[in-house]
Amino acid sequence: MIRPATAADTPAIARLIRGLADYERLAHTVTLDEDQLREHLFGPRPFAEVLLAEEAGEVVGFALFFSTYSTFRGQPGIYLEDLFVQPEFRGHGHGKALLTALARLAVERGCGRLEWAVLNWNKPAIDFYRALGAIRLDDWTLYRVHGESLAALGGKAP
Amino acid sequence: MIRPATAADTPAIARLIRGLADYERLAHTVTLDEDQLREHLFGPRPFAEVLLAEEAGEVVGFALFFSTYSTFRGQPGIYLEDLFVQPEFRGHGHGKALLTALARLAVERGCGRLEWAVLNWNKPAIDFYRALGAIRLDDWTLYRVHGESLAALGGKAP
Repeated sequence: MIRPATAADTPAIARLIRGLADYERLAHTVTLDEDQLREHLFGPRPFAEVLLAEEAGEVVGFALFFSTYSTFRGQPGIYLEDLFVQPEFRGHGHGKALLTALARLAVERGCGRLEWAVLNWNKPAIDFYRALGAIRLDDWTLYRVHGESLAALGGKAP
Repeated sequence: MIRPATAADTPAIARLIRGLADYERLAHTVTLDEDQLREHLFGPRPFAEVLLAEEAGEVVGFALFFSTYSTFRGQPGIYLEDLFVQPEFRGHGHGKALLTALARLAVERGCGRLEWAVLNWNKPAIDFYRALGAIRLDDWTLYRVHGESLAALGGKAP
């Protein structure tokens, strides 16, 4: 079963985010604060939305996403920031159900595309995405300014 | 001079989007409609924001961006969808002024990162971004579902 998350789901979402970070070997980068997460997802200015996958009344997976915009198409899109199913509940179709529900939402909202980034070593995820019709954007590379570089570029001390 | 765009700037923004598409050799992918663009940028539910660069009262460049969210950091971010300066006004500092203004906005809004995607062949842009402190995210690759694949995944006929 897939349903939209509410503020009461914040602890479950935080657990899933930490589970994903463990899986991606990025747990050392997590500085998430649960109260802030509640505010960022369910406050007056939500930065993202969440769909939850449940099994026997327990939250076992999530998709966290936000709107994008394609100027060339003149159409909004959806960016999938996180997709994760707890390891002990894999193979039950939750990942596909989450991605399908998100694609349905994208179509309903008039979005032209659904996009996300995958860690290059994560072959199980890549195989899963390709089987669902995703294409790899080989022509593009992501760049980022963060931390002290962002503070310096923005003209403020870090 | 850098300033936020208003609805009256929509024709200038559409011109700059087409100019960027020409430069990126992607003009054949542009299906932008100007009335839709106005609605998407300045309607009740804006999908993106725009900063404009002006020279002698004329709009010569733009940065179009939207909010993202990092779950690991528990922080919003900014994604720069388009950055473009008309070729005849290059070398006047407009690109750097736009990116600096955007970095300042990111810092003011408590964003942890400023990100964007670059076409791999666009060496002038890559050199420009690196000089401003950007790092390349080598570990990640972008994936996309769109068109018929998106409609199929979403369970509706294309």
